[in-house]
Amino acid sequence: MDDDVILLDFWVSVFGQRVRIALAEKGVHYENREENPQNKTPLLLEMNPVHKKIPVLIHQGKPVCESNIIVQYIDEAWHDKSPSLLPSDPYLRAQARFWADFVDKKVYESAKKIWMTEGEEDQQVAKKELIEVLKVLEGQLGEKPYLVGESFGLADIALIPFSMWFHTLNEIGKMNIERECPKLAAWVNRCMERESVSKTLPRPHKFYEFILEMQKKKGH
Amino acid sequence: MDDDVILLDFWVSVFGQRVRIALAEKGVHYENREENPQNKTPLLLEMNPVHKKIPVLIHQGKPVCESNIIVQYIDEAWHDKSPSLLPSDPYLRAQARFWADFVDKKVYESAKKIWMTEGEEDQQVAKKELIEVLKVLEGQLGEKPYLVGESFGLADIALIPFSMWFHTLNEIGKMNIERECPKLAAWVNRCMERESVSKTLPRPHKFYEFILEMQKKKGH
Repeated sequence: MDDDVILLDFWVSVFGQRVRIALAEKGVHYENREENPQNKTPLLLEMNPVHKKIPVLIHQGKPVCESNIIVQYIDEAWHDKSPSLLPSDPYLRAQARFWADFVDKKVYESAKKIWMTEGEEDQQVAKKELIEVLKVLEGQLGEKPYLVGESFGLADIALIPFSMWFHTLNEIGKMNIERECPKLAAWVNRCMERESVSKTLPRPHKFYEFILEMQKKKGH
Repeated sequence: MDDDVILLDFWVSVFGQRVRIALAEKGVHYENREENPQNKTPLLLEMNPVHKKIPVLIHQGKPVCESNIIVQYIDEAWHDKSPSLLPSDPYLRAQARFWADFVDKKVYESAKKIWMTEGEEDQQVAKKELIEVLKVLEGQLGEKPYLVGESFGLADIALIPFSMWFHTLNEIGKMNIERECPKLAAWVNRCMERESVSKTLPRPHKFYEFILEMQKKKGH
């Protein structure tokens, strides 16, 4: 049954990385198919006609879309496999969903602005916004090992791929995220001790090169 | 236990209405506290410090935020009460989450534009966009009674409060949503047969008056 799993993915996508981490946590075997965002395959358009975006998890021929939803699907479809990616307590489950949703609504947009924004003033605003967002996450972390409850799960999986961006953000934004958010930095190290994470995330330098290349093409 | 449930709400909010429908479906007793968005109470700011928005469900002193997350929480916290608001099959659960998320990402923004937009041309664009979004939902509905599976649930609860907007959208946008989307119109009628829905949603005319009043204040 495990073998009938295909992931439509793109190596640089933080959203695809979430799914790869979740599959690795559960030990699910799958075929990874690299998509080109500039030239989408007919399979991607067929499997995600609404958003036309990776990642798509195709399990026994049926597609599941949207990364946080896919991670919850993986937890439920392979519920007999450890570890659980969501706590069992309803309140903690709601917390996990809340923080995964917060990452989607706040981190992606505010971080992307730092290399998309032109002009010193706009970049200062973007930097301030990102640090505020990361400090909210740092507050949620507090003295806990993970974002919600005692175990690595949905909210951590939602956030950890963005740690691959920190080096690029520090370079381009002339900032030091690790110094601003030491608890978050310690949490990143803790997550990176997991093979599911360390083997999934590209080297930070590789991502930096990708962004510099992208900026060059856009004539920055 | 049921009695220790407080909902921070605002009558006109489609997001608050989702929570009220879910609580009514489960037969959970609760205290509804009306918030004023222009003058938020200290309790709201304490219970939802991140987004500072209603609805917030406070259950035994602990807050749950974000309407689709609250509906899932209600389903899980009162899992022994019928009906289930999510199917049991993992694939259908993912589908329910996907369509609830689609409503959040697409319906709210495109519908709101119709009364927020000034100028004929922009309004035409907004109308076209909304009808396209509603037709996607109509496609998902197909010949089924509800959006996902055979039962009324999360995705229906996410969408049905917007039906209260249709009269206003038809009037202001000079459109006819029911004619454009007959299956969706039939689904609205089907949902309105449920007491949880019909007793929760304000009369469409009341909403229209609210929007006209809002436009007047903004000097439209």
